[in-house]
Amino acid sequence: MDWDDLSPAEFRVLETVFWSGGASRHELAGQADFSKSKANAAVAALVERGLLEEVGPQPSTGGRRPELLRLAHRMGVLLAIDLGATSLALAVMAPDLTVLAYHSEAADVRAGPGVTVSRVRILLRQLLQQAGASASQVIGIGMGVPGPVEFDSGLLVNPPLMPGWEGFSIREYLREDYRAPAFIDNDVNLMALGELGRLQRRLSDFLVIKAGTGIGCGIVCHGEVYRGAEGSAGDVGHICVDHDGPRCHCGNLGCVEVMAAGPALARMAMEAARAGESAMLAERLQAQGTLTPEDVAQASRSGDVAANAIIQRSGQLLGRMLASLVNFFNPSHIFIGGGLARIGPLYLASIRQSIYQRSLALSTRHLQIEYAPLGERAGLSGAGVLALQETLRLHRRGRGR
Amino acid sequence: MDWDDLSPAEFRVLETVFWSGGASRHELAGQADFSKSKANAAVAALVERGLLEEVGPQPSTGGRRPELLRLAHRMGVLLAIDLGATSLALAVMAPDLTVLAYHSEAADVRAGPGVTVSRVRILLRQLLQQAGASASQVIGIGMGVPGPVEFDSGLLVNPPLMPGWEGFSIREYLREDYRAPAFIDNDVNLMALGELGRLQRRLSDFLVIKAGTGIGCGIVCHGEVYRGAEGSAGDVGHICVDHDGPRCHCGNLGCVEVMAAGPALARMAMEAARAGESAMLAERLQAQGTLTPEDVAQASRSGDVAANAIIQRSGQLLGRMLASLVNFFNPSHIFIGGGLARIGPLYLASIRQSIYQRSLALSTRHLQIEYAPLGERAGLSGAGVLALQETLRLHRRGRGR
Repeated sequence: MDWDDLSPAEFRVLETVFWSGGASRHELAGQADFSKSKANAAVAALVERGLLEEVGPQPSTGGRRPELLRLAHRMGVLLAIDLGATSLALAVMAPDLTVLAYHSEAADVRAGPGVTVSRVRILLRQLLQQAGASASQVIGIGMGVPGPVEFDSGLLVNPPLMPGWEGFSIREYLREDYRAPAFIDNDVNLMALGELGRLQRRLSDFLVIKAGTGIGCGIVCHGEVYRGAEGSAGDVGHICVDHDGPRCHCGNLGCVEVMAAGPALARMAMEAARAGESAMLAERLQAQGTLTPEDVAQASRSGDVAANAIIQRSGQLLGRMLASLVNFFNPSHIFIGGGLARIGPLYLASIRQSIYQRSLALSTRHLQIEYAPLGERAGLSGAGVLALQETLRLHRRGRGR
Repeated sequence: MDWDDLSPAEFRVLETVFWSGGASRHELAGQADFSKSKANAAVAALVERGLLEEVGPQPSTGGRRPELLRLAHRMGVLLAIDLGATSLALAVMAPDLTVLAYHSEAADVRAGPGVTVSRVRILLRQLLQQAGASASQVIGIGMGVPGPVEFDSGLLVNPPLMPGWEGFSIREYLREDYRAPAFIDNDVNLMALGELGRLQRRLSDFLVIKAGTGIGCGIVCHGEVYRGAEGSAGDVGHICVDHDGPRCHCGNLGCVEVMAAGPALARMAMEAARAGESAMLAERLQAQGTLTPEDVAQASRSGDVAANAIIQRSGQLLGRMLASLVNFFNPSHIFIGGGLARIGPLYLASIRQSIYQRSLALSTRHLQIEYAPLGERAGLSGAGVLALQETLRLHRRGRGR
């Protein structure tokens, strides 16, 4: 791909088509940030160059059915990587995020960057082959990691779950295989970017919560993912929800993470089992030697009273933290994702109740609190959005714009 | 002023010049969001039309001294109004925010909108005369009010300090005097906008806290004031800082406002006086019948131990709330304004200490916490920025862009 002779207007049309997930010429001329004649000229030039392509007529409510424009598949492919603390998902995608090849497997980031990134490189090569594409066709790479990232450098900064990754440049290793630019971001930011893509940017101010082993938050503000001054925005796990609460590994008392994340749920469940409050949990503890949030969810589904109380307590504490964010940030939506989102409706109901109780009426008037619609695919989808968006931005800026 | 025949590029040059507080042609060609030749052409056209003007050569570090461009004073004037709960400040400003006429006086918003807005209209007429300008020369009006505002409609929404203002349209009354558009915003948002203007947008992510009778927060995110989905973003006074704290008028326990705002300081001071903990405060209470935060500040400056403890306690509680915001939002700066900012260095030191103790290291690595540099002028300055910025936006959009 040679981006150098694209005009600013052409870049803007590409971005608009990408975010709209396919748009008619008519819509484009109305949406993009310049005149109709200029938009039409840019579209014509991009179709001519094979960067935009028309896909068949769409269902219409009357009149001539418009053809939709999308980013042409012959533009190249994107590589998307979602690295979790214990999992790895990868995909080769077309520029419009159609998945061309996909793979996921268990992983352990504690094995260190050398092992993990080698595995990523091998898998990407296999997936590219599977998708019938070559390394030279890759136009951009997006990757999510479970720790704080300095976005500009792509380096991890004090990642608590990733010992040994500090200062390691994932980008440099990927550069050995691909000329395309690589962008690294925190996994929760990518969940937010994934949902933003799904929504075609129709919501501009919302939060995505990842509640699992830890608790993190992706922030969308003015229609863009917000990373903060040091890239650590959304690091909400250590917000205090009880000044007399237990001590967290961070040194402070009553952080929401130590009181309400996955390990806290498991601990409360084991305490309940040992205290004889739940025969179901006790039986499972005896059989497995330990308990997980999944065990609590199952017991709750069978009507176990102690399990229900644990889930409600956990949801209430998370909601208490979120109530502060709602007062401060006034989002239109909060999407809850991560492992704990599998617990079920009682968890969500407890979170909602707690937020409504502690937030201002004006802020919750139209607030919607839901499980994240993309679920576990949000991160990988966001990695694809990151790859395409940042690649276009980079080349646009490269032109002195 | 006739805006209709300005091109998008010309609008963008005007905005760039405004935010840069005066820029050379060379800087403009580099900054604005289009090519150099287009920037130069736009500048030439705007100078020709009398919308930009050159001001004399500026100090240079060598080479030819560049002339600076600024928004031409003959473009018209702005009206800026900063209405507080107990004060009113107004100014006529040139488009580059030079103050041409200024007035301030005591006010009481509880007198209701009729009385207050009538007074505003009279004062604006006098100020315009004083500035040698006519109503037809007004190009935009910006006004701050001490309550939550629905920005698009300009209406107040459940303003707790402003009974009787709900649903009252300030805009409509101003429309009787001026053809120019009027924009209404919350006073803390305007403080943030004022500081953003002072900084010429060089910081993109920061918070401005107003701590006085209430506690509010202005948010700057991606270089723009952020108002949230319902316009209530920054309404942080009811964030909980102690789940066993006293009951707030909002119905919840331990809101930061009920525990740490001005009235709480006064209450703690009266308790200390009555408990015999401070001879100084007791004497003043006897003399005045009541105590204010100003009394606490004075006692503290004289070394009163009880007054110091009250200030530290209040700063610590505010800092506790801010620590949550720092973890979530990761701002580069927090500027503390409002009446309590007059208390002195001990208050600021207590806030800082509390934030550092409870926030993540990465978020506070470069965080700066200061008293708001514009002090009490921030709101009026922000009203001027609002007037100019939104007027340009409105006319730009009016052109179908």
